[in-house]
Amino acid sequence: MSKPTLKIVKIGGNIIDDEVALNSFLAQFSKLETPKILVHGGGKLATQLAKSLQIEVQMVDGRRITDAATLDVITMVYAGKLNKNIVAKLQSYKCNAVGFSGADGNTIVSQKRPVKTIDYGFVGDILKVNTNAAEALLEHDITPVFCAITHDGRGQLLNTNADTIASELAIGFADSFSVELYYCFEKNGVLQNVNDDDSVIEHINTTTYEKLLVEGVISEGMLPKLNNCFHAIHKNVKKVCIGKPDMLFNSSSKFTTIQAD
Amino acid sequence: MSKPTLKIVKIGGNIIDDEVALNSFLAQFSKLETPKILVHGGGKLATQLAKSLQIEVQMVDGRRITDAATLDVITMVYAGKLNKNIVAKLQSYKCNAVGFSGADGNTIVSQKRPVKTIDYGFVGDILKVNTNAAEALLEHDITPVFCAITHDGRGQLLNTNADTIASELAIGFADSFSVELYYCFEKNGVLQNVNDDDSVIEHINTTTYEKLLVEGVISEGMLPKLNNCFHAIHKNVKKVCIGKPDMLFNSSSKFTTIQAD
Repeated sequence: MSKPTLKIVKIGGNIIDDEVALNSFLAQFSKLETPKILVHGGGKLATQLAKSLQIEVQMVDGRRITDAATLDVITMVYAGKLNKNIVAKLQSYKCNAVGFSGADGNTIVSQKRPVKTIDYGFVGDILKVNTNAAEALLEHDITPVFCAITHDGRGQLLNTNADTIASELAIGFADSFSVELYYCFEKNGVLQNVNDDDSVIEHINTTTYEKLLVEGVISEGMLPKLNNCFHAIHKNVKKVCIGKPDMLFNSSSKFTTIQAD
Repeated sequence: MSKPTLKIVKIGGNIIDDEVALNSFLAQFSKLETPKILVHGGGKLATQLAKSLQIEVQMVDGRRITDAATLDVITMVYAGKLNKNIVAKLQSYKCNAVGFSGADGNTIVSQKRPVKTIDYGFVGDILKVNTNAAEALLEHDITPVFCAITHDGRGQLLNTNADTIASELAIGFADSFSVELYYCFEKNGVLQNVNDDDSVIEHINTTTYEKLLVEGVISEGMLPKLNNCFHAIHKNVKKVCIGKPDMLFNSSSKFTTIQAD
């Protein structure tokens, strides 16, 4: 018997931070057929709250350090305000959703990133995905909605990159489902010319990716996202796409599809 | 076939606000046999965060008014920081838990309290409990952990009393389970003499409750809690108890049991 298709959709700051865009996205997402999973990033709210609370944002090499106070802020904003408002909004569109952090259902177990030259603080690198709680809900047509928080299994919550959560979930569910992973962001996909949103490279495989890297077409910011994409496609995920949310709802839209080879 | 027993345990501020007490409670709670559900109140953290954010606490007749800013604070603290840390801690004790607000799984639908003389703001009175998401998890030995937030089904989160959430959940699950409802608080139960924690009234039924009310034994603060107890016991909940958490773990401890008649 062929596996059922599971869509895993990741949205980031450009949607999260824009109430109208978020609303419109959730209205459309709610109409996608189940089973499906939503993964959301954090957006600017956490930084704003940290500022209001006069919690110093410590950056090292352009990356935020997650100290205990920052972890609290992230937990409150990501798992609290954002996740619960997204769930409530999906319910209003008749999409039955349940919010998850990685601690819920012991779904995403990570380890605190070891200190080498930089101590990132309470940042987690994913070790294991347990799908049973989310699968129990998927079986009842309920849509899990993940925020970007994991735990170490010993009571510690950890801040974890949302793109990585999406790819590790995709890999975790690939045993039971034919998984399609969609990274939504502000551009139409990987662009040949970063200033031309129509210059979408529609297919990238390992060989053409290396060529694009050599040519300098792939920008710094896209590297981690594309690494997540290739990680997933090489680990049994059926389909990985990058583009605007439109790629999910409009069959004529352009986007980038990542291919294993 | 007899229904399986489901324990619903509500904890409040006296445990939530004390890290050592909370830890010790969760360690013991994790050992209770499943199926079980935890409901937690808010404690002092929300008030502290509101103060830090210079959000004015508006009180009318001793009750906090939930404006939009306060609702955000409550959502961040209850559903974010408290709920996720409780879930992570339970996982560390090998109790597989999933955090819920009433929006998750569309589990608790409420309506914004109508304005009569006082506008309480974003406060929800419960209309309906849908048990299917939580039941799907209970079937897999996963423990739902509820914070005191509900939703109106139209995208609006609402602040709702945790004692009421516990009693309405108990009633909602009574179709499928033989439900035991435990209200944990700082005293050994309903006391004949409020200053003597040994003067526990071990059984109260409708008749003796009315007598206690007339005698002035029931304090103001206990009235809503006891009303929730009687509401539950009259609606098919098998057992309702009030006391210290010890009543769940130590068979020799004293506590108050509410009886239908």
